[in-house]
Amino acid sequence: MITLHTWTTPNGRKIPIMLEELGIPYRIATVDIGKGEQFEPAFLALSPNNKIPAIVDDDADGRTVTVFESGAILTYLAEKTGQLLPASGAARYQVLEWLHWQIGGLGPMLGQVGFFELRAKEKSAIASKHFLDEAERLLGVMDRQLAQHTYLAGADYSIADIAAYPWLAATAEKMQQALGQQLAASHNIQRWMTLMAARPAVQRGMLLPKLS
Amino acid sequence: MITLHTWTTPNGRKIPIMLEELGIPYRIATVDIGKGEQFEPAFLALSPNNKIPAIVDDDADGRTVTVFESGAILTYLAEKTGQLLPASGAARYQVLEWLHWQIGGLGPMLGQVGFFELRAKEKSAIASKHFLDEAERLLGVMDRQLAQHTYLAGADYSIADIAAYPWLAATAEKMQQALGQQLAASHNIQRWMTLMAARPAVQRGMLLPKLS
Repeated sequence: MITLHTWTTPNGRKIPIMLEELGIPYRIATVDIGKGEQFEPAFLALSPNNKIPAIVDDDADGRTVTVFESGAILTYLAEKTGQLLPASGAARYQVLEWLHWQIGGLGPMLGQVGFFELRAKEKSAIASKHFLDEAERLLGVMDRQLAQHTYLAGADYSIADIAAYPWLAATAEKMQQALGQQLAASHNIQRWMTLMAARPAVQRGMLLPKLS
Repeated sequence: MITLHTWTTPNGRKIPIMLEELGIPYRIATVDIGKGEQFEPAFLALSPNNKIPAIVDDDADGRTVTVFESGAILTYLAEKTGQLLPASGAARYQVLEWLHWQIGGLGPMLGQVGFFELRAKEKSAIASKHFLDEAERLLGVMDRQLAQHTYLAGADYSIADIAAYPWLAATAEKMQQALGQQLAASHNIQRWMTLMAARPAVQRGMLLPKLS
């Protein structure tokens, strides 16, 4: 059984979507980052960077494996099951390049837009411009890619789409004032978001973890 | 033969180090980002995110494969050669989690320290504090990991080390005022940097691309 340690953030929702797509059994252990639970020693032993998500798989070829970092977890689960990441060839590296593009670019930059537009205690004009410019550039890159391909890494649905979707959903939901105009004009991203939102596993994953 | 499109930045130096470690033939095509060469159509066809590095491998099982994003390129080269990334098991995902930690955390955050401390046209106290705090936290995570392990992902040298080293070298070289004190106090990072700097392939890779 896989135990998923996560919370209701974009990175935290990637793995519930993946596990729902795979249809393999798992349980969720919530890590309330509002209460600082990510700094508790038991969680740090799994995730030394004190970030969600992290997984513990006690049936990894008969052993227990822990993995932190959402991109590494998506790769682990894809390779464990042989799904959503081709095992070899050009198509494999198309998925990995767009996965890394999300992990190293889209995610961190949208995260900084969220910080400076929504959470920072004071405004910084230079930081706002810097991150909005970069986020708009990245959304342009994504829109051009989706003009040529059904999914982010090509013709097939993959872990690159799962990595990107919760960030786009958060942008649409919470960053309307900052990026709504750009997002509305990104017709290919809109098409892809509709396609993604129609997937039952995406719908279920986006509601997890359920908070009691 | 592999053609590496790159420049003299931390992300740009990861792949020369990897190729020097592997000892496989390659040629370098410089992309002068100071002159905006990353926006030229021929380069965008390889790297739609207009960032270096990117590679073209015209001997990928008899086909030509292009890969962009440094983390994806490191993974491609490791899997092509069977080196510096275990093929399976827990050790594989230890490498991938620290690779993703560099790609999604250490790199973007040190990059923002570089922007707000060195390149931004005006200072922003809130942005400086935000990114210095996060960079210091990440260096602390790295130092604690290296207190317990010879290399970033465990006992063995891997693509996670290659991904992190040019960023630490850039921090030591260019961000002394911002992060030098933290770096000097990070004794385990210091040990690892000495170990890394002693590798002939790292020495050669850090000097590439050579500019005429």
